[in-house]
Amino acid sequence: MLSKNIIKYIQSLSHKKLRESEHAFVAEGPKVVAEFLQSENYRCKILCASREWLSVHHLLTKDISKDNIYAVDEVSLKKISRLTTPNELLAVFEEWPVSQRMVKLENTISLMLDDIRDPGNMGTIIRIADWFGIGQVICSENCVDCYNSKVVQATMGSLARVRVTYTDLVALIDRYPGVNVYAATLSGTPLETINKIREGIILIGNESSGINKDLQARATQQITIPKYGKAESLNAAVAAGIIVAHLK
Amino acid sequence: MLSKNIIKYIQSLSHKKLRESEHAFVAEGPKVVAEFLQSENYRCKILCASREWLSVHHLLTKDISKDNIYAVDEVSLKKISRLTTPNELLAVFEEWPVSQRMVKLENTISLMLDDIRDPGNMGTIIRIADWFGIGQVICSENCVDCYNSKVVQATMGSLARVRVTYTDLVALIDRYPGVNVYAATLSGTPLETINKIREGIILIGNESSGINKDLQARATQQITIPKYGKAESLNAAVAAGIIVAHLK
Repeated sequence: MLSKNIIKYIQSLSHKKLRESEHAFVAEGPKVVAEFLQSENYRCKILCASREWLSVHHLLTKDISKDNIYAVDEVSLKKISRLTTPNELLAVFEEWPVSQRMVKLENTISLMLDDIRDPGNMGTIIRIADWFGIGQVICSENCVDCYNSKVVQATMGSLARVRVTYTDLVALIDRYPGVNVYAATLSGTPLETINKIREGIILIGNESSGINKDLQARATQQITIPKYGKAESLNAAVAAGIIVAHLK
Repeated sequence: MLSKNIIKYIQSLSHKKLRESEHAFVAEGPKVVAEFLQSENYRCKILCASREWLSVHHLLTKDISKDNIYAVDEVSLKKISRLTTPNELLAVFEEWPVSQRMVKLENTISLMLDDIRDPGNMGTIIRIADWFGIGQVICSENCVDCYNSKVVQATMGSLARVRVTYTDLVALIDRYPGVNVYAATLSGTPLETINKIREGIILIGNESSGINKDLQARATQQITIPKYGKAESLNAAVAAGIIVAHLK
């Protein structure tokens, strides 16, 4: 049985400010929650699940204190869920500590996002990073919070593996003058003429406004996905996928 | 001033059955509506716009009868809009007649979608087709309706140019035995080893269940986007973008 306080606490985590002060967020559904439960980077604070699920997933829940596991029915789940169709379980996790998500830019490929505000796009990009084995996504401070519930769900659990950090991108790039920055723009070198890379930053901007000027000035290579038709732009996540697939 | 009947009619078009019987759908916002107004494939039945917009867009509205143009304020627009933030204008268009959207599969590249249900993905894929100059997207009957308002908005106007048809995909493929079918699967030939094509069908399936068996049996080539990390799958629209970018 969920107490009013627990319900209130879970609901409060839909607000970014409260997530930040609590260093906690909500994940939902068997697939997404299982990815976080199996991750060394996250600790489960509260698990609400159907009796059926709990009865067959002892291994996944062995590290959670019994006091923090709640068997819930559909009615209770509906009260705390942010999904249109609540799906068997919901869990509160502690965020991956920022100090352990520190980035390094040498000898690796990083994705860098400027002003990506759509939660679906952010989640899809984190999933792309995970598919292509890119371990870190570095975001400008005005990107949507990766622990926003829509982002968490759109990552399909990839957030359990990929480091997502928020920082001043210009200042960060300036600290690594030797690392190449490949910026996706509408008038750069055609993607297909660019060779695969083993180190570098792949920079994706906001779909309407592009990459901000100060950042674009730091690009060592502007790249463009050749256009054969008439659409004005591609979705930011699709552009990220095409560029990563080609460069990696 | 919008009459109650007009308001009711516009609202009714959020239902697929009514769109089908009326052969009409709703588009919103300056960018999307302008694309349809400029398209030879669509005829505007009703235009609701702010006075400011109407005062500077005479050219775009010259073919619409005055009786079908309504100057609306924000309050009225909110009543008929399906957007969280209504945006200056909303229009009802007649669907592109199905008879004029007939497909041919020879000497061209087509996108074929099996069981794509997410409106955002469908819209994004239509936009990808438009970017890469692919003129037709052929959908299985269980794909989401391309005139669903979320799809229309997600295409960012590309739907005004790309032919989207719904049919029995297996029967269609069987009528064109000479045309290659490139099916996106999780265990096919790595994408990067496949050459560019000038003719063929690029077949994308549902992200959870993949391509249905009967269709997959008709693939002349199964292709896979190489995976370097741990994500179980890619978003269907991202997969479509990566494959089209490589093959086109």
